[in-house]
Amino acid sequence: MITKYKSNKPRHFHHGHKNKNHDHKNGEQNQINHNSKEPRLRIIPLGGCEEVGRNMTLYEYGQDIIILDMGLEFPSEDMFGIDYIIPNTDYLKGKEDRIRGVILSHGHLDHIGAAAILLEKLGNPTVIGRNMTLAMVKHRVEDYKKGTSKKLKTILIKNITDRLQLGAFQVSFFQVEHSIMDAVGVAISTPVATVIHPGDWTMERNKQTGEPVVDYSHLANLPRPSVLMLESLGAISTKQSPTSEDLRANLDQIISSAPGRVIIGTFASQVERVGWIIQISERLGKKVSLEGYSMKMNVEIAMTLGYIKCHKDTIIKSEQIGNYPDNKIVIIGTGAQGEENAALSRMLDGSHRSLRIHKTDTIILSSSIIPGNESTIQRLKDNLYRQCNNVIHGGLMDVHISGHGNRDDIAYLLKTIKPDYFIPVYGWHFMLKEAEKLAKEIGFKPENIFVADNGQVIDFDRSGGRLSTEKVPSSYVFVDGSGVTDSSNDVVLRDRKMMSEDGMIVVITTIDVKSGNLIGSPDIISRGFVYMKEHKDMIQKVRDKLRSIVRERAAGHDDDYIKNKMRHEIGQYLFQETKRRPMVLPVIIKV
Amino acid sequence: MITKYKSNKPRHFHHGHKNKNHDHKNGEQNQINHNSKEPRLRIIPLGGCEEVGRNMTLYEYGQDIIILDMGLEFPSEDMFGIDYIIPNTDYLKGKEDRIRGVILSHGHLDHIGAAAILLEKLGNPTVIGRNMTLAMVKHRVEDYKKGTSKKLKTILIKNITDRLQLGAFQVSFFQVEHSIMDAVGVAISTPVATVIHPGDWTMERNKQTGEPVVDYSHLANLPRPSVLMLESLGAISTKQSPTSEDLRANLDQIISSAPGRVIIGTFASQVERVGWIIQISERLGKKVSLEGYSMKMNVEIAMTLGYIKCHKDTIIKSEQIGNYPDNKIVIIGTGAQGEENAALSRMLDGSHRSLRIHKTDTIILSSSIIPGNESTIQRLKDNLYRQCNNVIHGGLMDVHISGHGNRDDIAYLLKTIKPDYFIPVYGWHFMLKEAEKLAKEIGFKPENIFVADNGQVIDFDRSGGRLSTEKVPSSYVFVDGSGVTDSSNDVVLRDRKMMSEDGMIVVITTIDVKSGNLIGSPDIISRGFVYMKEHKDMIQKVRDKLRSIVRERAAGHDDDYIKNKMRHEIGQYLFQETKRRPMVLPVIIKV
Repeated sequence: MITKYKSNKPRHFHHGHKNKNHDHKNGEQNQINHNSKEPRLRIIPLGGCEEVGRNMTLYEYGQDIIILDMGLEFPSEDMFGIDYIIPNTDYLKGKEDRIRGVILSHGHLDHIGAAAILLEKLGNPTVIGRNMTLAMVKHRVEDYKKGTSKKLKTILIKNITDRLQLGAFQVSFFQVEHSIMDAVGVAISTPVATVIHPGDWTMERNKQTGEPVVDYSHLANLPRPSVLMLESLGAISTKQSPTSEDLRANLDQIISSAPGRVIIGTFASQVERVGWIIQISERLGKKVSLEGYSMKMNVEIAMTLGYIKCHKDTIIKSEQIGNYPDNKIVIIGTGAQGEENAALSRMLDGSHRSLRIHKTDTIILSSSIIPGNESTIQRLKDNLYRQCNNVIHGGLMDVHISGHGNRDDIAYLLKTIKPDYFIPVYGWHFMLKEAEKLAKEIGFKPENIFVADNGQVIDFDRSGGRLSTEKVPSSYVFVDGSGVTDSSNDVVLRDRKMMSEDGMIVVITTIDVKSGNLIGSPDIISRGFVYMKEHKDMIQKVRDKLRSIVRERAAGHDDDYIKNKMRHEIGQYLFQETKRRPMVLPVIIKV
Repeated sequence: MITKYKSNKPRHFHHGHKNKNHDHKNGEQNQINHNSKEPRLRIIPLGGCEEVGRNMTLYEYGQDIIILDMGLEFPSEDMFGIDYIIPNTDYLKGKEDRIRGVILSHGHLDHIGAAAILLEKLGNPTVIGRNMTLAMVKHRVEDYKKGTSKKLKTILIKNITDRLQLGAFQVSFFQVEHSIMDAVGVAISTPVATVIHPGDWTMERNKQTGEPVVDYSHLANLPRPSVLMLESLGAISTKQSPTSEDLRANLDQIISSAPGRVIIGTFASQVERVGWIIQISERLGKKVSLEGYSMKMNVEIAMTLGYIKCHKDTIIKSEQIGNYPDNKIVIIGTGAQGEENAALSRMLDGSHRSLRIHKTDTIILSSSIIPGNESTIQRLKDNLYRQCNNVIHGGLMDVHISGHGNRDDIAYLLKTIKPDYFIPVYGWHFMLKEAEKLAKEIGFKPENIFVADNGQVIDFDRSGGRLSTEKVPSSYVFVDGSGVTDSSNDVVLRDRKMMSEDGMIVVITTIDVKSGNLIGSPDIISRGFVYMKEHKDMIQKVRDKLRSIVRERAAGHDDDYIKNKMRHEIGQYLFQETKRRPMVLPVIIKV
């Protein structure tokens, strides 16, 4: 795979980038560029959730494809037993050798979590990202399959001013703010349009002036027409996030005044915030213990890269906590969403190998509530309040910053970058529609705003851009246990759902092949339906019904007919008795 | 059942109140009152959810028991297949004839929804409530079992100044605001304490003065010591609800300026708001169609009672909607939480018999988000935005009022009523703890605040009150299909959960009793595990394993041993192959 560098210091890009077997592709590309039929830029948002483009965006121009991000999503409650969801890459089948690179905007799981599976599936294309992001991807790939991280082909973005030529795509980067180090925005130029994509972003504003801390005005000078693809999760939010200054001050105040230990639950992905907490603790002469695999891993990566700096004895192990007075201890752990098996849950239910909650602890839940987790988090709070007198959470104090810009911030970016086209992304359909309304309100041309679905192709050529009706495969790909299953495997999920509601009942009849008579009494097993022992009469009636159905068999009906009859009649009878509809599974054994 | 009336006009209390067979009880009561060992007041909050006392409160004094509310709860996601949950009344077993009455504070399901089941179970005690509440309970009871509503013994609270003597309890009522007509607060006096319980309440404030519209100061004059049991759901909320004036103005503005039809999704329980919408529509010359069984029923009851007044031709049927221009139509329906089968969902998915969504409709979601429903509501919004250009919801405009007081309101009531004891209820434990903190902050005596759990007894005698360690049965009672199951039936739920995650596999081996040999090939059925057709090799391996396990049977092991071995070995093998853990159900058929 070939990349041309227009940067002044291109050499550092060659880290781990040895595979040159796609040289010819670039030749092809140039040829097509000079063709009479000029290629189009095709933009395809993909994701494993309703948030359009959340996990992956494809850019295709002629024979060249680049990919922005490879993330995963966690399943919603109706996806029984699914571990996670990855974007559908069916569209890339047979096009693997046209992939010029995978740019990773930042290290959060919804942007890098599918990389281990997808890189392998797509012929190991080169991965491009900043230090922290690449380090995290390497960890994920290694965790997925031991020894594979070494095979990863990477290009490190050493400097935000670096530029890359990936096939026909000229790629440059720009600074964005997000809750993890090394997040970058990308500007992707093609002969027909320049796409500006900040990835996930938030907008920190100067407390005095209200002006954004990061300057985006230079993005207005990129080659035209420009297309802004903007994460619009905050399109209906008018809430002003606290500044990071406020947040640090609040954390500082809580940690310094805590009468005992401080336990902070947050996302492992909030590496930046964890860094602040470590610094505050160290300044106050407190020791920090990190709890949870991903928390430890992320901090370790950040420390190795020099992003979190502290004395080596500030970080201690759980087992050492007892060696210090309570008010010298800060514990940072995962589990603020009430995740089972996370550090906080284990401390609460007594399954943590060394830590328990004390009444005098100060517990801070420094995280937002992920939609769908509300009741779990309420249960977590109840448990915390039962064991501890000082629980602090977002309902009481600003101990978290949203990682996403709000309505005002979206308007500000539109006015500052002044793109020719606006594609709101990374939100539910209704949020994108609201972002569209907002853009219209501030004077954006309605015909230049595209609200796409996952898989829907947005097309650009010299005459301009349009939202096409073409849709590439975008159904979710479920990862369940060790197997990646695709969504056509719905039947397994449907069965799980059905059994989760009213259980199932297996009715087994053994039949003498020669006589056609039933041998013995039908066997009945049920799970999740009713307590069999309490329903002996009903079970007896089921047996009677089975017997009389089997007698019909003698009349010459085949097994399928008999089984359907069992399913139907037994199902109806059980519903009439219990108002429940268990799955009825008839088995006929012939002897 | 006997009640003594101290009201001046007691006669109206005799509606449907004919059963006098408990006369003697009152005698007993008096006796106990004059005993040397004076009875205590025992207060027991009960519920079918984490919100303490949400659905039912028991008051026991000597031989007398009264009950406040009999509500139901809807299950959380981990209660697979459960229809709803009712409070545990095991404590009342054998005490049925001591129940002097059931007071219903208002007509919402979480306060009356379990009445049909529990009244029957508890020997049909007399039900006490205002007009709307009693009418709604009658409907529920009749829906549950045809013909039973006539048997309902009721006492109508005709006037808020009415007083009742229920055994040793003197009961009076006071006005509260809630989102349904005829909500009342109760004051329950006993020789040892007076309990003040507003039930669910909100606080409307005068827009100019900020003063509450309803005056609670008279509650400070009740016999002491007084105990305030206060719904504290808003203990961590500082948000000021819009006034009902604001809300009406917003609805008016939207309905009058809508270019086409207006479709309003709200809770059927928001009868008061539905009344406003009908009035606004009528004034604007628009027709109103009501969609959804409970919506129609509630409005019908309110109209019968004269609480909603409109010309008889303002309300039209769905089928008549087409007879009017779009901008003359207002549709009020259930389904703002995205409930399957509710009117709004049926209009959206095309299953409503006559209504579809039009692009030009204005759709208002006039409801809060019930915790746990977030993703469902986001999906609903997405679907609405896809079909309609004008969707208005709480994220955009004040189109809903919370039915619950906030932090300031709680503080205001504490300062106004000046109770001797404070028992925050109707909230999750952490909210009650925050209400406790709030009370302390405004100077309430810490030792006079009791945060109880469901089932925990709060005790009062002449020397004062205390939170006892006694707990009466309070585990949830699940209603599932036609059967009321109790929570000890956990195994059914556990099985449902397990099957919902990785499905199940039934392995059936038929064995010749004489020889001990396997007959034919083992039968294997799986559901919700893997697609059998795609895993033929694995299934073959399972068969092989079953064969070799059956061979061991010849060595003299019994069936249980063999089944356990199958469960264990097959389970382990399947996990190793798929990383999934289906439920393994071994069946041995002997011929």
